[in-house]
Amino acid sequence: MTSLLRGNAVVGQAGGPTVVINQSLAGVIQEVQKYDHIERLLGARHGVVGIMQEDFIDLKRQPSEMLELVAYTPASALGSTRHKPVDKDFERILDSFRKHNVRYFFYIGGNDSAEAAQIINKMAQEANYELRVIHIPKTIDNDLLVTDHCPGYGSAAKFVASAFIGDNQDNRALPGIKINILMGRDAGFITAASILARQREDDGPHLIYVPERSFCVARFVEDVGKIVDKFGRCLVAVSEGIRDEAGVRWTQRVVEEMEARSGRAGTVETDSFGNIQLSGTGTLADYLAGVIRNELGKRKSDLRVRADTYGYLQRSFPAWSEVDAWESRLCGQMAVSYSLETDQDGSVALMRLPGTSYACGTQLVPLQEVAPATEPKTKSLPDEYIAQQGNYIMDQFLVYAGPLVGNLPRVGWFEQVKTGQAYGGGLGPRQ
Amino acid sequence: MTSLLRGNAVVGQAGGPTVVINQSLAGVIQEVQKYDHIERLLGARHGVVGIMQEDFIDLKRQPSEMLELVAYTPASALGSTRHKPVDKDFERILDSFRKHNVRYFFYIGGNDSAEAAQIINKMAQEANYELRVIHIPKTIDNDLLVTDHCPGYGSAAKFVASAFIGDNQDNRALPGIKINILMGRDAGFITAASILARQREDDGPHLIYVPERSFCVARFVEDVGKIVDKFGRCLVAVSEGIRDEAGVRWTQRVVEEMEARSGRAGTVETDSFGNIQLSGTGTLADYLAGVIRNELGKRKSDLRVRADTYGYLQRSFPAWSEVDAWESRLCGQMAVSYSLETDQDGSVALMRLPGTSYACGTQLVPLQEVAPATEPKTKSLPDEYIAQQGNYIMDQFLVYAGPLVGNLPRVGWFEQVKTGQAYGGGLGPRQ
Repeated sequence: MTSLLRGNAVVGQAGGPTVVINQSLAGVIQEVQKYDHIERLLGARHGVVGIMQEDFIDLKRQPSEMLELVAYTPASALGSTRHKPVDKDFERILDSFRKHNVRYFFYIGGNDSAEAAQIINKMAQEANYELRVIHIPKTIDNDLLVTDHCPGYGSAAKFVASAFIGDNQDNRALPGIKINILMGRDAGFITAASILARQREDDGPHLIYVPERSFCVARFVEDVGKIVDKFGRCLVAVSEGIRDEAGVRWTQRVVEEMEARSGRAGTVETDSFGNIQLSGTGTLADYLAGVIRNELGKRKSDLRVRADTYGYLQRSFPAWSEVDAWESRLCGQMAVSYSLETDQDGSVALMRLPGTSYACGTQLVPLQEVAPATEPKTKSLPDEYIAQQGNYIMDQFLVYAGPLVGNLPRVGWFEQVKTGQAYGGGLGPRQ
Repeated sequence: MTSLLRGNAVVGQAGGPTVVINQSLAGVIQEVQKYDHIERLLGARHGVVGIMQEDFIDLKRQPSEMLELVAYTPASALGSTRHKPVDKDFERILDSFRKHNVRYFFYIGGNDSAEAAQIINKMAQEANYELRVIHIPKTIDNDLLVTDHCPGYGSAAKFVASAFIGDNQDNRALPGIKINILMGRDAGFITAASILARQREDDGPHLIYVPERSFCVARFVEDVGKIVDKFGRCLVAVSEGIRDEAGVRWTQRVVEEMEARSGRAGTVETDSFGNIQLSGTGTLADYLAGVIRNELGKRKSDLRVRADTYGYLQRSFPAWSEVDAWESRLCGQMAVSYSLETDQDGSVALMRLPGTSYACGTQLVPLQEVAPATEPKTKSLPDEYIAQQGNYIMDQFLVYAGPLVGNLPRVGWFEQVKTGQAYGGGLGPRQ
């Protein structure tokens, strides 16, 4: 064990919040409270922005009741940021660290945060400024490299699976076609989680489209038609990030077509790279519902078609997977432990232990493995989880995602009683 | 007490499902199981459609474990219907009742169901066919006459309030303007429930627009601008049913404008009366976000504007208010009790007992009071709950709706620590 580096610590949160991101924060605070060599723990308001502006909150002396209440509060308690630091920002960050004698930096975030952590780490080394930099993973998208899964994903997946359980019952009660658009710009993990909702043979989602496969509208119409013929209804999960065969995002196509026809631009927000904002717009949902209504409505005049975009509820609804909450806390705690036990910097990764039942530990992995300089920089839904036709998810995915989500509401139902039978109905077995 | 009418009973569910509609069904089943004079309890599949088609499920011999699982399962377990019976349908219904010796009819539904129950009741009387008809109220919209509130409302309100708690934290972490469209075609009860989310002085929703007041876009832009100036962010609740000063629905206006510009009709579903389908489309959300982006974006170029339409999750997400679940069960049980203790037909109403803390009982009220022949046929959000400017909800509403929703997740936060203070932050007091 190397001798302990004395000084202060900074913790920050960045990127899209999750409902368990404060668990990681609480884990860092709890762990730091145990030690004397970290004198002050400064919470940076809105991530790197707070570091640059020296906007800090003293976190070491928070009472445990408050800590627990914050831990179970959705969305970054310190505030978050979408700001990607550039060269002179990094110099300001290092200056701020020097000024406040910061020797430990814990950064809770996704891909971009791991990259920022890596740059800060390198600059400190070059400047011979001794600094431990530990990245703590977080993203509902579940697309970080190395780690088995990401803190935040299990809770988002649980929200989606729960929502589909209710939506499937609703669709059963008033049969029709229901299309739900789910988050995930490039990775289909959140959308795939909808399959966890299934408890009965004819339960939805009946079709699942992820961004890892190109999306063809004609085939979509055909797929939906077949399910409607079979079950008299159809529940569909579609990722917001789906692209056409040419690799163009469908939301982009639909918005451009809409704007061209209406002669009105700027209806949907674009980022500084001109990428269309996929979440927080109902465009894709309305478009797909319209297509189905026009195409299948010819066959069946009383066809009921509805579409919802689950939107920001997926990352902010105040309910969580217990496993996810606990693992997020663990990642925060372990970040502090790793910073003491080794002079390695890195990113905390969750490592699933091989075996039949679920168990997971952590490991510190090099920052450049989580934020590499070359593609692929993120993880996609593995091929083995996607049905060959590209319109459904394979059962193996349940083994992967089931334990991360934990218990889900179970449904009951009544069946036709035949003479002599004691009763109809069944307890919903998890498939 | 009159002598007990011997025969069979039918129970049905109609209209938009809720997450507690099966509690009322379970209440009916449980209560009927106690008595011998009701020989069979037939569950009509998809309401009046099942009665006409003699599509029944025997419900009296369901084991209690199954009953409880169904009770906590969202959306009408018997299936629902939007079919409004016409003259010859009612004759078929009466024929079906005669054929199956049905002497008790319990109909769980909203306004339309109360009306249908009333017609069936009258026809049976005219035909000298002895029949007890009891309507059991259900609607998330909370717009039924007479009853203090409607089974189903508390759970929808709880979903909305919970969602806003998370959304407010998300909006605080990444400040910007967030607009959420909520259900409620003509009544603002669901939208008003968003105010229950507030726990801190600067918490959102900061603006609430209900269909009981006309909605002016220019004033909306002004309102949002003021809040952004004050808090640097703004969280808004808007009812899907808002209308302009001329009484035209905004969704209708936006869709018509969109269709006129694009030359493409049929993008949004209309019902048989030509009314636009308000739920299940993101049109209004995207329109309002676009307006804010265009108008306020001039002042602030990095303005973050997002909009979500909560959609069908409001009535189907598998979580509930305990009070609502219990009262829905009670209404089902009491329907059966009333059918035995009196020869009056009617609708079960929830009656709040006067006093400071919450207590509620039931009462059987005449069907014509719940489904009158003349306007108003539904209840609106009372004037005393709506702020004078028409853009917010008054505190008195908390007294009305709070007990129906019950406990909500509490949030924690860290505040700046000043020297000498033990700690910053506070336990979120309910306001």
